[in-house]
Amino acid sequence: MKGKAVVLLSGGLDSSTVLYIAKRKYQTCSCLVFDYGQRHSRELESAKRIARTAGCDYKVIKITFPWNGSSLLEKNKKIPHNILRKIGKGKIPTTYVPGRNSIFLSYALSYAETIGAKKIFIGANALDFSGYPDCRPRYFNAFNKLILVGTKSGDIKVEAPLINKTKKDIVKLAFKYGVPLGLTWSCYEGGKKPCGKCDSCVLRAKGFKLAGRKDPIL
Amino acid sequence: MKGKAVVLLSGGLDSSTVLYIAKRKYQTCSCLVFDYGQRHSRELESAKRIARTAGCDYKVIKITFPWNGSSLLEKNKKIPHNILRKIGKGKIPTTYVPGRNSIFLSYALSYAETIGAKKIFIGANALDFSGYPDCRPRYFNAFNKLILVGTKSGDIKVEAPLINKTKKDIVKLAFKYGVPLGLTWSCYEGGKKPCGKCDSCVLRAKGFKLAGRKDPIL
Repeated sequence: MKGKAVVLLSGGLDSSTVLYIAKRKYQTCSCLVFDYGQRHSRELESAKRIARTAGCDYKVIKITFPWNGSSLLEKNKKIPHNILRKIGKGKIPTTYVPGRNSIFLSYALSYAETIGAKKIFIGANALDFSGYPDCRPRYFNAFNKLILVGTKSGDIKVEAPLINKTKKDIVKLAFKYGVPLGLTWSCYEGGKKPCGKCDSCVLRAKGFKLAGRKDPIL
Repeated sequence: MKGKAVVLLSGGLDSSTVLYIAKRKYQTCSCLVFDYGQRHSRELESAKRIARTAGCDYKVIKITFPWNGSSLLEKNKKIPHNILRKIGKGKIPTTYVPGRNSIFLSYALSYAETIGAKKIFIGANALDFSGYPDCRPRYFNAFNKLILVGTKSGDIKVEAPLINKTKKDIVKLAFKYGVPLGLTWSCYEGGKKPCGKCDSCVLRAKGFKLAGRKDPIL
């Protein structure tokens, strides 16, 4: 176990599990937390607590999108429910933020190259996911090719260890690696308790149920 | 002439010329200006004036790099001079900002997809350039492949019309298309007058000289 990695940490189930996976492989894991005006800003607090609990340093990057385009950012837009039924029909939900993962990964790339980290971990998932084009294996492959030609070092790689895992698998991994699940936050709504209805809550509940575990935040 | 384009505008000679190239092809050109703590912040004022002169709207995006790594951002680092002599020997100057173009283009991509623009213009140049890996044709090709797989629309393209032009060609184009050259700013130093010694000043002077033109800012 040696070397440095950068971990994109949102405070949700997936990215927190990825942090604990990265910690097993790299001596120093530096977390990047993005504050992009998401309505579930409670995520931010979760992310900070999880990084501290994991004994990792973190940086919060404030990103201002001076345009609209996603229900995750516009407080007067309704968060879609039951969108999962439409997956597989080529539908992309309104929670899609154009270019989001490219912006996040570019910052991570900049940070990784600066501190000499060779790996960037991201909690993207292509199975139990929301249909975002920038969460697919081919997207991360394309980003890795971009790194090859667009950096001084050329030897940094994005890794998405959960890309082919189900939510059930992820919950199991989280328990196995001791992720502080009680600190994680997945709900898209900004309430005190998870709404239980949004895309993210439904996926999370499904994962815990199939893994035969109780969700500590409920 | 129809449709929308996004233009990355720094306020320098190259990006200003690109704006005027884009204006000939697209009905609406929306400029993105990045404020990333560069020491030549005079560029920002130039960029705003040039956008207004061109009759285009612009947005200033504030980017905070919470890490160091480039002499362009660190006020106590010296801007390298005569770096051009080392080009071709595989040297990358300290003015290189890791991941910068990836961050810029990702914001542009986000903006373009939101407003329905199909083209992103950038003033990168691979001939009389500073040896940055993210200014080469292969880098932009890789970014275009990333867009293909990572967006909802998939039909946005980055174009770098100056990529194979010399500075002489660029100066000629700028005069031909009526770029307000007196408003542009290229110097890396933050003084009132161009330093005449930095990488960027030397390249600019060379271009004007070979084009047989007088630089209006001198």
